[in-house]
Amino acid sequence: MTAPPPSQHPPRFLALADGSFGPMSSKTANACLRYTPGRVAAVLDAAQAGRTAERVLGFGGPVPVVATLDEGIALGATAVLVGIAPPGGRLPDAWRALVARAASLGLDVWSGLHTYLADDPLIAEAARAGGATIVDLRRPPADLVVAAGRVREVDATVVLTVGSDCNIGKMTAQLQLRDALVARGRRAAFAATGQTGILVEGRGIAVDAVVADFIAGAAERLTIEASEGADIVLVEGQGSIIHPSYSGVTYGLLHGSLPHAMVLCHQPSRRAIVNQSWVPLPPLPELVAMHEAAARPLRPAPVIAVALNTVDLDDEAARRAVAEAEDATGLPTTDPVRFDPGTVVDAIERFDAARRGA
Amino acid sequence: MTAPPPSQHPPRFLALADGSFGPMSSKTANACLRYTPGRVAAVLDAAQAGRTAERVLGFGGPVPVVATLDEGIALGATAVLVGIAPPGGRLPDAWRALVARAASLGLDVWSGLHTYLADDPLIAEAARAGGATIVDLRRPPADLVVAAGRVREVDATVVLTVGSDCNIGKMTAQLQLRDALVARGRRAAFAATGQTGILVEGRGIAVDAVVADFIAGAAERLTIEASEGADIVLVEGQGSIIHPSYSGVTYGLLHGSLPHAMVLCHQPSRRAIVNQSWVPLPPLPELVAMHEAAARPLRPAPVIAVALNTVDLDDEAARRAVAEAEDATGLPTTDPVRFDPGTVVDAIERFDAARRGA
Repeated sequence: MTAPPPSQHPPRFLALADGSFGPMSSKTANACLRYTPGRVAAVLDAAQAGRTAERVLGFGGPVPVVATLDEGIALGATAVLVGIAPPGGRLPDAWRALVARAASLGLDVWSGLHTYLADDPLIAEAARAGGATIVDLRRPPADLVVAAGRVREVDATVVLTVGSDCNIGKMTAQLQLRDALVARGRRAAFAATGQTGILVEGRGIAVDAVVADFIAGAAERLTIEASEGADIVLVEGQGSIIHPSYSGVTYGLLHGSLPHAMVLCHQPSRRAIVNQSWVPLPPLPELVAMHEAAARPLRPAPVIAVALNTVDLDDEAARRAVAEAEDATGLPTTDPVRFDPGTVVDAIERFDAARRGA
Repeated sequence: MTAPPPSQHPPRFLALADGSFGPMSSKTANACLRYTPGRVAAVLDAAQAGRTAERVLGFGGPVPVVATLDEGIALGATAVLVGIAPPGGRLPDAWRALVARAASLGLDVWSGLHTYLADDPLIAEAARAGGATIVDLRRPPADLVVAAGRVREVDATVVLTVGSDCNIGKMTAQLQLRDALVARGRRAAFAATGQTGILVEGRGIAVDAVVADFIAGAAERLTIEASEGADIVLVEGQGSIIHPSYSGVTYGLLHGSLPHAMVLCHQPSRRAIVNQSWVPLPPLPELVAMHEAAARPLRPAPVIAVALNTVDLDDEAARRAVAEAEDATGLPTTDPVRFDPGTVVDAIERFDAARRGA
């Protein structure tokens, strides 16, 4: 989807995260809680019912965690949000009945899964009966074309987040950097490339959901669209160029968006790709060199900063990790969620000014 | 599709190549003429009607080029083959009526386009009326899963062709190498990854047509399937890791098939990506290094040979190009179509023996 979702009123979500609500899981629910908390009525996770989002995540305020759909409705939910992104993106069988029941009661269904819920006969029929709308965030536009380097005509400075692994902070870093740049008065836009980013931003294309030949074409289009009225476009990265399942998406996104510069995202505690322990993570300087080499044949782009995700470290360890990454790479480094993102924002502004010859 | 196409009798094709029949275009028709010439009744190209395939291509024997559908039917065609692979893979509007008419007359429709012809109401209705079957070679299996390195359990030696650009000989090289290995008594299998390879081989998955998250998963699956009963699996490469439109497919195929070794394909006369002149082709040694670097984080794989496409050179220039590539890379080099592929076949056998510690 590139147009805003079709709902007339901002939805109030019951975010489904049953059995998985936590800081490093339930990615879609978490982003919604961080960036649009007013849209979340409650989170559904029976195992943590009675707590608040703040207590589970460290952010999200007093949004309650509940055990049942009915409690969510009682709290004002007008839609259910399928807030997980499992491998392959398919809906767990156990959730189908719950979502169908919600739809039959008139709650809209927002989903970021690969399996489009509007194509699920059970859920579609329930939505029809209940007068509910189904918003499949990942469904790509029907009129994609293959990439042809059109993005080179964009005047804005394009910055892409890249990472050592999936689910490591590439979207969150860009949202934090965007907010900081806007606070400095810069015309900075966020280009969403995944279901969660699209949910937060209201537009974008899920590049992992397009037909493979169109990855770069989708990246080109969403970068061009985000550049309208912006001087800096912050493209949400996906996956990792060393991820055995998703590297094609990552690489196509890099060559389609043709960034002028990259920000490398990493979680210091990770030693290997999650769930693929046979792929160890290279040291940061090697990751920097690999990304610059991958970009070079099309448009050279330096890695200009490092954004760490230190969610599982205490403050002292987090500060040490930042210092170590800075030491190893020679690049400005921060955790843009935990600490002031200023040092990385400075790097982007310096790069932008140098590029424009200012 | 991974099962053989559903037709009961081998089809006799009228290969549609109107306005494009030639050595470096009409890729699907050409591969069919080279590897399964008995299946081609005629080629449709009004501009070259009256000639033979041999005269236009330099191979394909006496298969006639005709100007109309009716001539093709008179020559015994039982199916039309959409024998072009345009950017994005969509059916030219002008061809829809022709294909629909063929279907309404009972000719089966075989297509390698991204636009599935079975989903085209006009053509689907014509096929229903005419009792014709529509075979969409590119339609992926519905049950793909994301890659997880399962291909590492394959005992066979996996060799992937990679290339400096699209449409440069990656499929043809593998088919020539497969035939030569089989002639030496080796159990070698061809793993098809594109519509033309699937047409020739009768099985495979078009990795450029799957949802982007499943590129590597599709590559993993087709490599595992091809390895059954084979000691050497020759995986058909796609695109190029420097191609601005398709690099994601290429890179995902590399990380999904996890080759033990690679053969680099190149056309010496090309200086830049076709239709993307802003991307110059790096020198061969640099291409070798780039591919080895891309493979390394998951499974190190050397480039062990170079396969040139010298179709547009005379014999002397072709021999010189082979010698120059050999000199530049230090690797066994040939044009496996024009010359004896033995030197590259030797390289594969040596690599296989060394890998197995023989």
